[in-house]
Amino acid sequence: MADRIEKPENIIYGVDVGGTSIKLGAFSPDCRLLRKWSMKTGSSIGGRNIIPSIASEVLSEIAGRGANILGIGLGVPGIVTGENALLPCVNLDGWGGKVGEELSALCSAPVRMVNDANAAALGEYMFGSAGEADPMVFVTLGTGVGGGVIAGGKLIRGCHGAAGEFGHMKVYPEGEEICGCGKSGCFEKYASASSIVNLASKALARAETEGGAKSVLAGAEAPNTKDIFDAAISGDALAEEVCEAYADELGRGLASIATVIDPELFVLGGGVSEAGGYLLELVRNSYRRYAFSETVKTEIISSSLGNDAGIYGCAALIGKIPEAL
Amino acid sequence: MADRIEKPENIIYGVDVGGTSIKLGAFSPDCRLLRKWSMKTGSSIGGRNIIPSIASEVLSEIAGRGANILGIGLGVPGIVTGENALLPCVNLDGWGGKVGEELSALCSAPVRMVNDANAAALGEYMFGSAGEADPMVFVTLGTGVGGGVIAGGKLIRGCHGAAGEFGHMKVYPEGEEICGCGKSGCFEKYASASSIVNLASKALARAETEGGAKSVLAGAEAPNTKDIFDAAISGDALAEEVCEAYADELGRGLASIATVIDPELFVLGGGVSEAGGYLLELVRNSYRRYAFSETVKTEIISSSLGNDAGIYGCAALIGKIPEAL
Repeated sequence: MADRIEKPENIIYGVDVGGTSIKLGAFSPDCRLLRKWSMKTGSSIGGRNIIPSIASEVLSEIAGRGANILGIGLGVPGIVTGENALLPCVNLDGWGGKVGEELSALCSAPVRMVNDANAAALGEYMFGSAGEADPMVFVTLGTGVGGGVIAGGKLIRGCHGAAGEFGHMKVYPEGEEICGCGKSGCFEKYASASSIVNLASKALARAETEGGAKSVLAGAEAPNTKDIFDAAISGDALAEEVCEAYADELGRGLASIATVIDPELFVLGGGVSEAGGYLLELVRNSYRRYAFSETVKTEIISSSLGNDAGIYGCAALIGKIPEAL
Repeated sequence: MADRIEKPENIIYGVDVGGTSIKLGAFSPDCRLLRKWSMKTGSSIGGRNIIPSIASEVLSEIAGRGANILGIGLGVPGIVTGENALLPCVNLDGWGGKVGEELSALCSAPVRMVNDANAAALGEYMFGSAGEADPMVFVTLGTGVGGGVIAGGKLIRGCHGAAGEFGHMKVYPEGEEICGCGKSGCFEKYASASSIVNLASKALARAETEGGAKSVLAGAEAPNTKDIFDAAISGDALAEEVCEAYADELGRGLASIATVIDPELFVLGGGVSEAGGYLLELVRNSYRRYAFSETVKTEIISSSLGNDAGIYGCAALIGKIPEAL
């Protein structure tokens, strides 16, 4: 086959649908990123506009290239069932159904659909600093907690498309707060970005009634995760305590995951992971406190692809490892 | 190849080393069980006698047949590392090291070593009622809690040989009792056979101080799991309560495992699983209370091979799926 890397005739699209934005990437057949862009998810009844707007973007991009669509990998923020249907997404007004087939019909191209966190796991495994570690566990720490598992060189989707749904692991027998899933004690109530903010608000409220040294966070109206990490790094005692409590929860959860699959590597993605080395070191220490036997040796690193992990993973579904699904 | 099922020239041995007994099976090359027997594990300093006594059994059995050893699958009650070494087994006076190589040298035959609960998982997957469900999770409920994970048609051993070590999943942030692993909050402190007995002793002590209806268990010196299940089935209120509390713990733990791997099927093995339908129904109900989303549909059944699962799985390592490891 002639070398057509500079002007590929066949283009793969990786499309990662999120609650607020849709990320798109155009890739060469060997999954080299040629261009990336994003658009607002927009609001429409039942998310009815999502697939037509993706199709419109893809069709005009491919027309501009005078090329063919090799295929589209579609990452979606929900459970993809064995029948290749998306269960209704709470964040997207119940968007769901055979959305992959809709996109395929509109673009006249093959479409493979995958859970967004599973896609990011695949992206990190194939193209990120995970370096094809196997088994590998990717955990995304954002508003919620999700992720993906790679084992035996394959993305493990699970029987009902729910593998890697770490956010709903029961880390407390009974939790104080009810999770979005309707149950309690879920990992994501303790390890998501929102839970750091909650921990900080509680600590601030406690400090206010108890007195003591003033935290730099006490002034801020509602500190976000970045404020909290910055304060901890600059030596604020309350913020340090909050980060340690959070890392304790996160490390303990990772230790539980390790008893199931014993990964070579954990890769942390999502907003929280951007906090960098300070948090990572706390999480590693906590993990080692809780991990069983040989699994203490498992490395924990941050995502190297960041927000692009999803589109890379979606592209990989078409270009690299169709056999892995 | 000629049909040699009636008198195979090549024999596979499946050997499952336990704390008190060693189970052995002679299998045809297609893993049909020809003969099974067992011997006491015996006591020796550092378990030094274990491999010679297995070699002696295998060599005299093969001599009696006038056949060749195709290979030996060796199941061991501990962690098998990536370097194919057994970490020291606490139950067997620190027995460990390159024991597979020792056996191989003594028998002049290839040996594949595997964790015993992983072997049982493989046995159930290949030959039991699991019917090649994928992913499949096998959980053994005995003195401790262990198990194995099958995904993508493969036994997942993990990076450090610790996949399926569910017993050390953290189901409580801080547990009252310290686990054998030196940490607390471990699943096996709540879901093992021993933990049912503990629950019953506590309930009996409480009933004694508080008064109320007399349990049939109150007479027995130290009721075992069978006594407790029998009492519950016959309607004893205290025993019913104990079984429900136990099933609650077990079902919650299974729900957590499901968030990682989303199995098609859970297979329960070990002593507790022999309690039959009564307990199984309680566990299924508990699991459904805690399970996330689509994973509520996952079936939970009892082991169909029972104590033979291990030797079948060991034999499969040689005869059926060397590629699966």
